[in-house]
Amino acid sequence: MPIFTPQPIGFVSSPFKDTAAIPKGLGAQHDAEGVLNLLTEYEAGLTDIEGYSHLIVLWAFDRSDGFDLMVTPPTDNHSHGVFTTRSPRRPNPIGLTVVELLRRDQGSLCVRGVDMLDGTPILDIKPYLSSIPPEKLRRGWLGEAEARNKDLSS
Amino acid sequence: MPIFTPQPIGFVSSPFKDTAAIPKGLGAQHDAEGVLNLLTEYEAGLTDIEGYSHLIVLWAFDRSDGFDLMVTPPTDNHSHGVFTTRSPRRPNPIGLTVVELLRRDQGSLCVRGVDMLDGTPILDIKPYLSSIPPEKLRRGWLGEAEARNKDLSS
Repeated sequence: MPIFTPQPIGFVSSPFKDTAAIPKGLGAQHDAEGVLNLLTEYEAGLTDIEGYSHLIVLWAFDRSDGFDLMVTPPTDNHSHGVFTTRSPRRPNPIGLTVVELLRRDQGSLCVRGVDMLDGTPILDIKPYLSSIPPEKLRRGWLGEAEARNKDLSS
Repeated sequence: MPIFTPQPIGFVSSPFKDTAAIPKGLGAQHDAEGVLNLLTEYEAGLTDIEGYSHLIVLWAFDRSDGFDLMVTPPTDNHSHGVFTTRSPRRPNPIGLTVVELLRRDQGSLCVRGVDMLDGTPILDIKPYLSSIPPEKLRRGWLGEAEARNKDLSS
């Protein structure tokens, strides 16, 4: 018996029509604007969301198939475990994006920071409630790759 | 056709045997230690995870059934849209917890900050890469409820 059957609560309207268009790699900027369009039946679940500046969006990599346990990400030339990356090819193809909420128009949330493909099914929206202080954060191979890149470009 | 069929990549070992034991509400501390036990077949996906201080864990509310669009959370006496809360009764019952990685023992990650029930199925682990600066974060009804509570207790 499946744990649950994922249902789209809505779909992303995004400027990205194919994966090549999505900014990736070191120094990639994620400031693209898009719209989270909720299905009418879920709209009431957005009540009071205007009070939040940032949201966590969970969505499905619906155009990805299968998974790899080791991945060479666009930010590095070494391979790493898939759970240390944001690769779409994961055992459960769930994506996570933190977006800034710009405004709400009924069931549509205009947001900044989308990195999903246009038409991506949305699974969940959660409030972004707190941050880990930067001085407490260690960022593994990504931090190391960024440091190497900085050395090269300086 | 379902978007995908969620499969557990492992299970949480947690001190919480029932929901009543999980700290909730204003000022709740989330510093309980637990273990994320990955199934052997997914262990290689953890390669290099030791370099990260914090992880995002996605998991299934496997003991929750159905959903409500409006929720009165333990932190407030008003109801709010489910997508502004962390209620387990959501259209897609996916939970999200940020944990601190204490150490890894092969396929087992000892972590601080679990708020899942013992035996909870894990869906995904992602690296925690960056934070929204606190001064840019607005926390909606939760921020207001905290402010009211502070006034009452001072």
